[in-house]
This record gives sequence, structure tokens and C-alpha cells, in this order.
Amino acid sequence: MPSSTKKNKQNFHPIQDPTGAIVMPKGFKAGSAFCGLKTNQDSLDMAILFSDVPCAAAALFTKNKICAAPVKLSREHLKTGKISAIVINSGNANACTGKQGAKDALTMAKITAKQAGVEIDKVLVASTGIIGHELDMDKVNAGIVNAASNMGCDLYEGSNAAKAIITTDLTIKEAAVKVETKEYSYTIGGITKGSGMISPNMATMLGFITTDAKISKATLNACLKKAVDLSFNSITVDGHTSTNDMVAIMANGANMSGSAISKKDDIALFQTALNYVTQTLAKKIVEDGEGATKFIQIDVTEAASRKDAEVIAREVANSPLVKTAINGEDANWGRIVSAAGYANAGLDEDRLKLYINDILVFNNGAPVKELSNQNVAFQKKLNKAMQKKEITLNLQLGLGTNSATMWTCDFSHGYITINAEYHT
Amino acid sequence: MPSSTKKNKQNFHPIQDPTGAIVMPKGFKAGSAFCGLKTNQDSLDMAILFSDVPCAAAALFTKNKICAAPVKLSREHLKTGKISAIVINSGNANACTGKQGAKDALTMAKITAKQAGVEIDKVLVASTGIIGHELDMDKVNAGIVNAASNMGCDLYEGSNAAKAIITTDLTIKEAAVKVETKEYSYTIGGITKGSGMISPNMATMLGFITTDAKISKATLNACLKKAVDLSFNSITVDGHTSTNDMVAIMANGANMSGSAISKKDDIALFQTALNYVTQTLAKKIVEDGEGATKFIQIDVTEAASRKDAEVIAREVANSPLVKTAINGEDANWGRIVSAAGYANAGLDEDRLKLYINDILVFNNGAPVKELSNQNVAFQKKLNKAMQKKEITLNLQLGLGTNSATMWTCDFSHGYITINAEYHT
Repeated sequence: MPSSTKKNKQNFHPIQDPTGAIVMPKGFKAGSAFCGLKTNQDSLDMAILFSDVPCAAAALFTKNKICAAPVKLSREHLKTGKISAIVINSGNANACTGKQGAKDALTMAKITAKQAGVEIDKVLVASTGIIGHELDMDKVNAGIVNAASNMGCDLYEGSNAAKAIITTDLTIKEAAVKVETKEYSYTIGGITKGSGMISPNMATMLGFITTDAKISKATLNACLKKAVDLSFNSITVDGHTSTNDMVAIMANGANMSGSAISKKDDIALFQTALNYVTQTLAKKIVEDGEGATKFIQIDVTEAASRKDAEVIAREVANSPLVKTAINGEDANWGRIVSAAGYANAGLDEDRLKLYINDILVFNNGAPVKELSNQNVAFQKKLNKAMQKKEITLNLQLGLGTNSATMWTCDFSHGYITINAEYHT
Repeated sequence: MPSSTKKNKQNFHPIQDPTGAIVMPKGFKAGSAFCGLKTNQDSLDMAILFSDVPCAAAALFTKNKICAAPVKLSREHLKTGKISAIVINSGNANACTGKQGAKDALTMAKITAKQAGVEIDKVLVASTGIIGHELDMDKVNAGIVNAASNMGCDLYEGSNAAKAIITTDLTIKEAAVKVETKEYSYTIGGITKGSGMISPNMATMLGFITTDAKISKATLNACLKKAVDLSFNSITVDGHTSTNDMVAIMANGANMSGSAISKKDDIALFQTALNYVTQTLAKKIVEDGEGATKFIQIDVTEAASRKDAEVIAREVANSPLVKTAINGEDANWGRIVSAAGYANAGLDEDRLKLYINDILVFNNGAPVKELSNQNVAFQKKLNKAMQKKEITLNLQLGLGTNSATMWTCDFSHGYITINAEYHT
């Protein structure tokens, strides 16, 4: 836990049951509908998130050069100023759909704006699902109208929005935190959907966060960037960046009178609370990773730079050999240190230490004595550690004071089955 | 096929049955032995490659910062001048073995030098197999003495050397080519072993090439670099660079009187012949990739730079989603173009074309009409193409004149079984 987290912990309170998280902050409503973009009749596939008052907003988008129409539109709308609503459909990503796709994304913003009584450029649009298929706009139109008609601030409606944005996820993903100091209080709530390529054809990571804190757009943007770096950008299921990734936050200030969050300590507290929400959501994505049986945390410490630590953590997290070894519950330190070794980052074999679930297995260029000597008690202890559902790998580089953490899951037969048996 | 290949094709003749390739060039001998580093009694685990006259030599080594003792030693010996012998053991990689490992690699060179009657620094050493275990030097000593005692230039002995360097490979990998012009003739022969992580704990790609051409060390080095870039550096099974990778070539000039290869055309012909050997060997590694059921060629063309083409080809080749789709015989163009899209290279969605086995499926930012319209005949044709054992993906970027090719295999249940069920 970073020191700022410890320091601020007394003021921020994770909400144990986050059901309805996205409408927990004051002044936010959610509405959902099923309009037939998904085939499962029992599901929801359209959601609107709405704030009574226009919000300071920030968002981060996929860096994939093949980028979906709603991403392009939302990027433009975000530039114009305040945001009042986000409309999200699942079942169709509206990606690789050319000019018609761009037109359809704009139409989604127009219908939502009309229903919500706001300007078109105050609406963000997000889509997730199959790519390369044009949206059925009759269905989309009915879906938005229907979702708008049942907008409300009950937890039930918030939770339905979380359900409406998922595709093949096995779980709904929500998180919320309440911040209380002597001077003020506010809530941050967030929802997200499956990572990497969880949806049948092409996945998309979407995340939406609301808060009733009062905060400027610039500060919000800086905090979101930091939070996403330490959460959504620190997870990988298969290393495949999607075409639709988007994380957006809306802050309406509804619960804070007076001036906006601007003092250093107040910003740090907001950052801590936001990190909690984004990290909780990011971990839920990994736990629900395709075919996942293990949750893996990779801590790279004592690196010469933060960048080096990140690069090494990512290479280890993406190595199919590391992921299959952990699936097989084998403490294959050789695969782990060699993945670190081929990362494009500073590493000195003779200073490197590796701990697996706090057990030192590799020390200064060689496996520990207990391994070389095939010590039976040590091997038993290690085997037991590998049977845990959560595996932590700590690579200590001995080169500096920087660190990074990545979360990933294992590679299983389930992963191959899901991705080889699916047909477009 | 590059234009230089076409131009030189009349002068170079691939040898259809390459059994014994490594001793086909004049003046080279090979010797092999079983000394117990592998557990299978029927196998071989020690080989010596030897030239009667000292050779101009060049070698390329792993870029992994965790790097095996024989790699470090061979790097030093290569600097000193000519090379007379290479000693290779399988069954133990002598990696992550600290000071004892360095001492043992040097001892291997010493024993070989004594047996062959050459200086110690004229011997290269290579090892492959399990990592983190010290070599049993009694076995190694007996193995080298035994291998040296049966050195010869019969094809049988050449082929045994190819057998002695493999670990869990399912096939022996050899290739040879004869070059004949009006002025001169020479032969190039090569052997290699399994790529990526084919051996149980930690794999190692080893390749050894001999030639009786007369060529300077500097020219040989330049040619080897180019050849390896277009062959061993253009394959991937799982993106995991090993600790022991090494490709070495020895040229003894035994078949060419007069001056060394130095004219532009002669160097180009040598390069073409060497490329044939290294590419043939590299493809054999991919065909024998862990759990592989498909051989995949990725051609990126019309790129702004060679580097861009390489980066995109590599990302596509390493995407588990692309590899599982091909395993499932699904023409999932979305996974392919989006993998290209997240590569750190120039790409414009609106100019991009994708051909799968010569069938255009993605054109200027969107799937072709036949896909959007779900044309039954087209889908049938595409399904049939996907059932082939060899799949070629051609991404045409429309941004320039540069290209790159990568070879990889699919990701199957077999891959997970091999790598999850193996225990250290």
C-alpha cells in the first residue's frame, strides 16, 4: 500500500456492498433497457448515466490505431466542456464500420441529448461487443428512449446499468468509496466490464465513474490519468489492446458546497479514493479473465526507474510460459526471471531476487540452496504456496527505489476453449 | 521471394535430403555421445563440430539479460580470432548457475581443446536444457572424450550431431545448400533445435552452420546478421526469449582456392544461400512448435519503414487471440487488424487491407461487403482456406514500400498441456 493510501485511510471508507455504485454519488441517475443488440432476452444492452447538473469530466481512450466510432466522437465531445450524460450500448462495438458508424455514434448522442434535455456535445457515447457490424439503429433508438424513460437514482437502477454494459463477463463489476473529512464529504462510484477480449469477437474494456465531489476538469483529468495508470493500465489478460477501451469520470459537485478540491492534501485524498475505485474494478476484470483460475500480482521493486519496473512487470504478466506454469501450480522461477531478463529495461542478474508468495526462490543470479539441494520440506512449502488462488511474484532488482505492480490471470485450457471454439 | 533470391537462384541448389548437413561442407567433422545429461538412454546429449583448419567465425547470442555461462564464454572466445570447434551439450542449459557455471563452461572448452588438439580460445561452448542446475562434470568429461573419439565426416555422424543438440523437439532439423558458379563452388550446412521454450523447463534456440566457402570474418558476420534477422529473428512460438540462444557459423575455406568472397555479387549469392539455410531451419522450428497444428506466415507489406513492418508482424504473431482463432480455424479478421492497430508503428485504418490466404477480408477500414452481407459462398471459401495447414496473413498498410515476414504457429490445448503439466 503506498504511503499516501495509509495516510488518507482514516478519511476514506470503501463501501462494502457496492451494488448500485454508479448512482451512489448525489445527483446521478441511471437508466437501462434491452433493445435486442444482444441475443439473450434476459439481459440488458443499453444504459444511460445522467447528472442533473453538467459535470466536469475526464476520459481516457484506447491507443489502438484501429479505433471505434464512439471513441472518436467522445474524444471530440470531451473537448467542448462539461458533460451531462453517457450513453452505452453492449452487443455491438460499432468499430470498423466506416462512415456509417460515425453517423450512428452521432445519432446515439442526438437521441440521448433529446431524451435528457441537454446539448448534443454534452453526451459521451460508448459501445462494446462484436466489431465490423453496423448498428441496427431502430433497435438503438428504441433502447435509448426506453432507458431514458426509466432513469432514476435507486441502487437498483445503478446496478442495472452495470449489467447493461457487460458482454460475456461472468460477473457485474461495481465499486464505491465514501470520503469524509471534517470539512466535506463525497462519494465516488464506478462500474466496468470485462477486460482484453472477453466478448466473443472483440472485447472492450469500459469503465465509468461518477462523483459528487466538486473538482475542476484539469484536476479531475490529472487524477484520472494517475488512477488509470495504477489500475486499468496495470492489468492484462492477453496483452491484446482493444479498439473500444474507454474510462470516463463525471464530477457534478452536488455534495460539496463552497470551493472545489484544490489543496494538495485534498487532491491526494481524492486520488487515494479514486485509486481505490479504479483498482477494485480493475482487479475484478482480472478475476473474471477468460478461463482464469488464478489471480496473479506482479510486484517489481528496487528498479532504477518506474518505467523499467513497469516494462518488466508487463513482460512477466504477458509471458504465456509464466501464465501456464502458474495454471499448473508449478513454481517455475526460471520462466519468471528469464521473462524479466528479456524485458527492455535495466536488470542485473547478479542482484536479482525473486519471491513467490513471500518465499525467496532466486537470489543473486542463482536459485536458493534449498532448491539446488532439492530440500523436501522447502519443496513442500513451495508447492503449498502455489496451490493458493492468489499468487504474488516479487522481483527485487536491487538497482534503485522505483516499483510497479501488474495484475493478471493464468492461461488455462479454458482460455483456449473460449477463444478457439468461438467462430465469427 | 526477394529479388536477390530470384536472381541468384540458378546458382544455388538446395539439397533435397539434408541428412548430415553439418558435415557436407568439406573439412568438417562431427562427433556425438550419450553421457547421461538426458534421462532417455536412447538419445544423444553431447556433440562436437570440428574443422581441420581454423575457421573464420561469427555468432549471435541471446539478448536476454539473464544469460547462460556458455553464452558469456563463447562471446569472449569469438573475439580472439579463428574458431576450430564447437562443443554442445543438451539436457542441461548451464544457466543461472553462478561462478561454478562459468568454471564448468570453461572446463568444457578445455577438455574439447585437448581432445581436438587446438587452443582453448578456439572453442565455442553451447548448452541447452534445464536451467538452475550445475552440470555433472564427470558425465560431461566422459561425454566430450567419447564424442571426440568418434568424430568423422560421414553423413551419419553429421546427423547424429543434429540429434544430440535437441531436447524435447519431435524432429531433427537440418538444411543444406550447394552454390556453384563458373568460378567456384561451396556448400553451406546447418542444424538447429527447438524454438522458444520447447524444452521442459527452459528452452533454448541453438543453430550451427558450417561452410567450406572462403570468406572473411567481417563479411561472414555481416551476412550472418542479415540471415538471422530474416530467419531466426523472424519466428516466435510464445514471445519468450530464452537465456541460451546462440547461432554460430564457421567458414573454413576448404573448398575454395584463391581469394575470399568479396565482390558484391559473390557476397549477394552467399547471402542468398545462407538465407536459404537459416530460413529453412527457422521454419522447421515453428513447424515443431509446442502443440502447433498450423504454420502461420505473416506478411506486412507497404509499410513506411522496415521497422514498422517488423513491429506489426511481431504483435500479430504474438497475439494469443490471433493464435487461438487460427487454431479454431476461424477467419477472425477483427483480432488480426486490432493486433496490428496496437503495435507501436505507423498504421492508418482507412488504408489497411488484410488478405487471409489471398482472400481479401478487410479493405480500407471495414470488412469486405461479402462479410457484412454474410455471403454464403464467400464464407464457405473462407472456411475452406482456414482449414489449410499453412495460413498466410497479408497486411497491406498502403503507407510505403517496406515489408517484413514473421513465422509462427497456433496456440492449442496441446500448448497448455505441455506447459501447465510440466513440473520443475
